[in-house]
Amino acid sequence: MSVTAAEGFVASGCHAGIKKRRHDMALLATDDRRPVACAAVFTQNKFPAPPVELDRRRLAENGGKSAAIIVNSGNANAGTGAAGYGDARAMTAAAAEALGIGEDDVLVCSTGIIGTPLPMEVILKATPKLAKTLSAEGAENAARGILTTDHKTKQVVVKGSGFTLGGMAKGCGMIAPNMATMLAFLTTDADVSAEEMQAILREASDRSFNTLNVDGATSTNDTAILLASGRRGRADLNEFADAVHRACEDLTLQMARDAEGMTKMVMLRVTGAMSDAEARAAAKTIAENNLVKCSWYGEDPYWGRLLAAAGSAGVAFEPEKSSVAYGGTIVSRGGTHADHDGEAVRSHLKEERIDIEVALGLGSGTARMIGIDLGPGYIKENSRTS
Amino acid sequence: MSVTAAEGFVASGCHAGIKKRRHDMALLATDDRRPVACAAVFTQNKFPAPPVELDRRRLAENGGKSAAIIVNSGNANAGTGAAGYGDARAMTAAAAEALGIGEDDVLVCSTGIIGTPLPMEVILKATPKLAKTLSAEGAENAARGILTTDHKTKQVVVKGSGFTLGGMAKGCGMIAPNMATMLAFLTTDADVSAEEMQAILREASDRSFNTLNVDGATSTNDTAILLASGRRGRADLNEFADAVHRACEDLTLQMARDAEGMTKMVMLRVTGAMSDAEARAAAKTIAENNLVKCSWYGEDPYWGRLLAAAGSAGVAFEPEKSSVAYGGTIVSRGGTHADHDGEAVRSHLKEERIDIEVALGLGSGTARMIGIDLGPGYIKENSRTS
Repeated sequence: MSVTAAEGFVASGCHAGIKKRRHDMALLATDDRRPVACAAVFTQNKFPAPPVELDRRRLAENGGKSAAIIVNSGNANAGTGAAGYGDARAMTAAAAEALGIGEDDVLVCSTGIIGTPLPMEVILKATPKLAKTLSAEGAENAARGILTTDHKTKQVVVKGSGFTLGGMAKGCGMIAPNMATMLAFLTTDADVSAEEMQAILREASDRSFNTLNVDGATSTNDTAILLASGRRGRADLNEFADAVHRACEDLTLQMARDAEGMTKMVMLRVTGAMSDAEARAAAKTIAENNLVKCSWYGEDPYWGRLLAAAGSAGVAFEPEKSSVAYGGTIVSRGGTHADHDGEAVRSHLKEERIDIEVALGLGSGTARMIGIDLGPGYIKENSRTS
Repeated sequence: MSVTAAEGFVASGCHAGIKKRRHDMALLATDDRRPVACAAVFTQNKFPAPPVELDRRRLAENGGKSAAIIVNSGNANAGTGAAGYGDARAMTAAAAEALGIGEDDVLVCSTGIIGTPLPMEVILKATPKLAKTLSAEGAENAARGILTTDHKTKQVVVKGSGFTLGGMAKGCGMIAPNMATMLAFLTTDADVSAEEMQAILREASDRSFNTLNVDGATSTNDTAILLASGRRGRADLNEFADAVHRACEDLTLQMARDAEGMTKMVMLRVTGAMSDAEARAAAKTIAENNLVKCSWYGEDPYWGRLLAAAGSAGVAFEPEKSSVAYGGTIVSRGGTHADHDGEAVRSHLKEERIDIEVALGLGSGTARMIGIDLGPGYIKENSRTS
């Protein structure tokens, strides 16, 4: 059920013909077609795709409301200029007409290749069909319709006391902090205002989606949207915030496991930094370092590369106060080798999920980042797009 | 002749036993064993290797003089703490004794794996042999002795009017702006002071070595050293600076061609930025972007990825003012597709050297960066070190 688990939402998905065979469109709407409270966070890329620009404008103008979201995959409608903006509008107009609502109450998301005009004919042809097939059972089809190079759908349901929160997401490459090429759609039947949700969604995104670093790239199209039907009344805001965070975290881990070419998912923690911001900067530099990423692929406990990366992160760093641990086993202390159980480390590195802590020993700043190894699979998926 | 082309210098190289078979040590000295003017630039990594710390201290204490440089490859003597510093000193002491000079007049450089103690026995045993075999003909052996995963030696000679400048370098991975794992040794017979050379070497490094970006990593050991015997008298400073820049540029291109796993060398120019610093930041973000690097490997003219990277560089960027050209052919204008000769672009991308210009259209800031593609060869060389 995922995105239709909460009361008041219906969804559908289909193969429109943007991709050769796989599903490539999805529609999510309120079951009575009325607009509900809506919060959203978008890419910080300065080359945002037209659908991102359109959604930002609509939500700013209507104070945070939406009744439907139309999504296509296979083409990002990015790098398409004014014509692309017109196409994004045309998608919302077609969905609005099929749903019998106003165009301003519809949002649009696109994901896929950059720089190619949307095939509007097939999109406009499929839209009425998407509207007709909307149902509470349509969540699985919708979750398939938003995927690009993902191998699996990403769906989640969190039950609160008196409310339900469900969601779906896509994303497996071009993901870096700041939500690169990731789409996430969350719905709830709790009664929460757009303003309340905006702060909650922003913080949950920072703590989950924005800690996943597949390749350091920041996409043109990232979007996370949260809709609240309010059908089941007010929720405790703390509990609701916790549910949003749990749902985002769950979707983040699903994305990490499905990352392009991924063989290792690394839960990297930087501790003892002078501030959380410095911990985050160090974690980002380490997680994006290709030599480090290759060592993860090779199951090589090469702590020297981790410290060399930390040393180039532009943050306070004193090697003699640092330590590095793989799976809880300290392999380096004071910037040099520490005697340890080599077999325990080698065995930990054979697992798909690797835990690494780089302790800077300077302050109380901490950060978590999910890093992905760099192996031949990533190159295979990204060296040819056409 | 390279590093011994200028009057007053001798060199040698040998296989000491740090590596299995290849040369792994080199010695460079003045032919009369007297200290001469010396300038140097080092890594900005905050996890510098002990030899870097020792050299910095010596040059600061003696005001920029040196008579000899002892170098080993195969082991970086990094992440080795106080014991590593002792080993670095012991290397200079052994060289000083073999040359009959003071320890303070000797510098030391190491390059190779991080976190493993130097095999001092074989190093100390080889050092007297290196001193005995010093000669003007030893440049080739010395150039071989400083290599790590390099496939070829890097050597250069520039003739000025009344002076000669020669040099050798190593480096092919873990190279990013700020001179990661690169060693360069330059000698001249011009009479130039240490202070004059320091400014010249710094600027030449910034314009050459620091524009090469193999993998975004910044090493613990980078060092460039310039020695002047003064044997042929004063040189015109502008001409000398130009010669240093030309030598550094030549060595940079040799390193780029030998980059780990490299199949494409990309001369990336960012123009029209608000400042040179912003142009440089954008060029760095583009050249380090794995999706961009994969597209180079795949000979894919995917300009959307270039602009998406530029948009995430944290610099002023307005897509509608931008353009992108491959080999002089504009493929994108105003953030969207521009009609162009696709065959010309495909043909250009088949070449080993690719020229790309990303014009931001905002100001007069420009930067050049040499990017390297990301293909399976890089991963093969970097996923296992032990």
